[in-house]
Amino acid sequence: MKRKFSNAMVGVVALGLGWSLPSLAQGDPLPSWNDTLTKQAIVEFVSRVTKPGGPDFVAPAERIATFDNDGTLWVEQPMYVQMAFALDRVKAMAPMHPEWKYTEPFQSVLEGDMKALIESGERSLVELIMVTHAGMTTGEFSKIVTDWLATARDPRFKRLHTELVYQPMLELLSYLRANGFKTFIVSGGGVEFMRPWTEKVYGVPPEQVIGSSIKTKFQMRDGIPTLFRLPEVNFIDDKTGKPIGINEAIGRRPIAAFGNSDGDLEMLQWATIGADVRFGAIVHHTDAGREYAYDRKSHVGRLDVALDAAAVNGWTVIDMKKDWKVIFPFEMR
Amino acid sequence: MKRKFSNAMVGVVALGLGWSLPSLAQGDPLPSWNDTLTKQAIVEFVSRVTKPGGPDFVAPAERIATFDNDGTLWVEQPMYVQMAFALDRVKAMAPMHPEWKYTEPFQSVLEGDMKALIESGERSLVELIMVTHAGMTTGEFSKIVTDWLATARDPRFKRLHTELVYQPMLELLSYLRANGFKTFIVSGGGVEFMRPWTEKVYGVPPEQVIGSSIKTKFQMRDGIPTLFRLPEVNFIDDKTGKPIGINEAIGRRPIAAFGNSDGDLEMLQWATIGADVRFGAIVHHTDAGREYAYDRKSHVGRLDVALDAAAVNGWTVIDMKKDWKVIFPFEMR
Repeated sequence: MKRKFSNAMVGVVALGLGWSLPSLAQGDPLPSWNDTLTKQAIVEFVSRVTKPGGPDFVAPAERIATFDNDGTLWVEQPMYVQMAFALDRVKAMAPMHPEWKYTEPFQSVLEGDMKALIESGERSLVELIMVTHAGMTTGEFSKIVTDWLATARDPRFKRLHTELVYQPMLELLSYLRANGFKTFIVSGGGVEFMRPWTEKVYGVPPEQVIGSSIKTKFQMRDGIPTLFRLPEVNFIDDKTGKPIGINEAIGRRPIAAFGNSDGDLEMLQWATIGADVRFGAIVHHTDAGREYAYDRKSHVGRLDVALDAAAVNGWTVIDMKKDWKVIFPFEMR
Repeated sequence: MKRKFSNAMVGVVALGLGWSLPSLAQGDPLPSWNDTLTKQAIVEFVSRVTKPGGPDFVAPAERIATFDNDGTLWVEQPMYVQMAFALDRVKAMAPMHPEWKYTEPFQSVLEGDMKALIESGERSLVELIMVTHAGMTTGEFSKIVTDWLATARDPRFKRLHTELVYQPMLELLSYLRANGFKTFIVSGGGVEFMRPWTEKVYGVPPEQVIGSSIKTKFQMRDGIPTLFRLPEVNFIDDKTGKPIGINEAIGRRPIAAFGNSDGDLEMLQWATIGADVRFGAIVHHTDAGREYAYDRKSHVGRLDVALDAAAVNGWTVIDMKKDWKVIFPFEMR
């Protein structure tokens, strides 16, 4: 039996049958969401799978929800935060590498020529990532990330990147956890770039963060065990890599998945198709005033195939402009 | 500051200082453990890291404990259970492969010639694993494992393999969880061979099982998303692979680790060396009467280097014969 919760259907069900929504009765757990069909679809789904004895009840152990990170939980424009980190690291490391002044892709980075950098292609970007992300222990890398995030600011909002997370999604994470869900991040970004801060910012502990990774090597150094980061790709957690990574790390299929781009298509398919009550949703960036508006033609976070698939599969499309009262936590103060 | 809990030291501390052991006062959580220094070391460690305001207190989120599986939680002699599974699968699949009657290593398996099989070397064993573990979806493989475990019996004990788990270790898993620990399995065995049953047998959910794996491929089949198992090694979770796997899957260092063979050496090092209060332990198979006795010269589960390292690093060596009142749950009935 397949049941899909499109916005329209849930509206009909909720209004037509007069179902009670007990979670809302006891204080609104999603105060930053406007009272639209999107919010109703989320609450309706959670109510159904958590109702003891109900036909759609899901045992707590099986309540797995997966979230993309870039563009789903925090801002990914004008470039991925991790790319901004890599560029800053090149600048910080440049004094140790005088040859970079005359060597691409480093020269473009140091001269701030983003156009030349982008045109230099994917191999150049991978080289930048490897140079800045490998060559140290896991502990050292964690500290570098933590130190950078403590001071680096977004060029438009002049805020720390960890302040540019979406308040409605923070509420959604908490709401799901309060209803027995285990929340996971499943990101194309580097797993060790996220783990130092996801628990504090999202309430998601390191062991529930899945991401791309480079290889590491175990070695004893002066009698102390270390993991040394190597300049070699281990796993790319994007597109078909997302269901593969979910299976490797979790070993269960999620019953809910949240993404925002074509990179999340296969995760949404894996979570929702061919099973009973499931919830898939896509954050659609529709608010150029408060954040950004982009989809089918964007170079970062392109949403094209997955937007078409949303209509076919009954995934909820979250319209940032219409569905969200506020975008960022600092707007609440 | 380094503090290591050798049996002797804990005995001195517990007796000499007259520390209270509150967990024991309220009903014994480890009833199948004899009241030896080993048991005292375990209880002492848990008491210290869980005492609020104490100098060795560890926040619940950081209470990660990792357990090897073969030989640490269940019987690994006379051969790994997963190897017995592979051999049985070859026999079950043989009617579809008439050429196996004349092709090694299958011929040896079908003729029951274990000596020839072992002499055929590691490459042959990998071939057996690939033929029997790949070529189906993850869901299909899970069902094959579940069906096999429901009927396959150990040659000596005539019991299901899932009955041949160590009762004292089941109690230890529960005791740690009752004290806020998150328990993980970190095994050289295949992760998808363990996940179908670890929750029921050990109380360890799939997302807390780390193991070796083969690659998978995401594909839509008749509109349904599947992960197809490929005959290609993805990750070997043994020796240095254990800390690497722990870091990839958990992203925190364990504060306690339990193993039984040289394959667990690096996990024990990673968990215990160079940090504050930690607990490392090795299950030493010393009971030929009730189970098996083997260590430095065994082909399966060799314990040699790690046994020497235990003395150097203050890891507790669990003496099955002396420390355990019973070995298996069915002895309790």
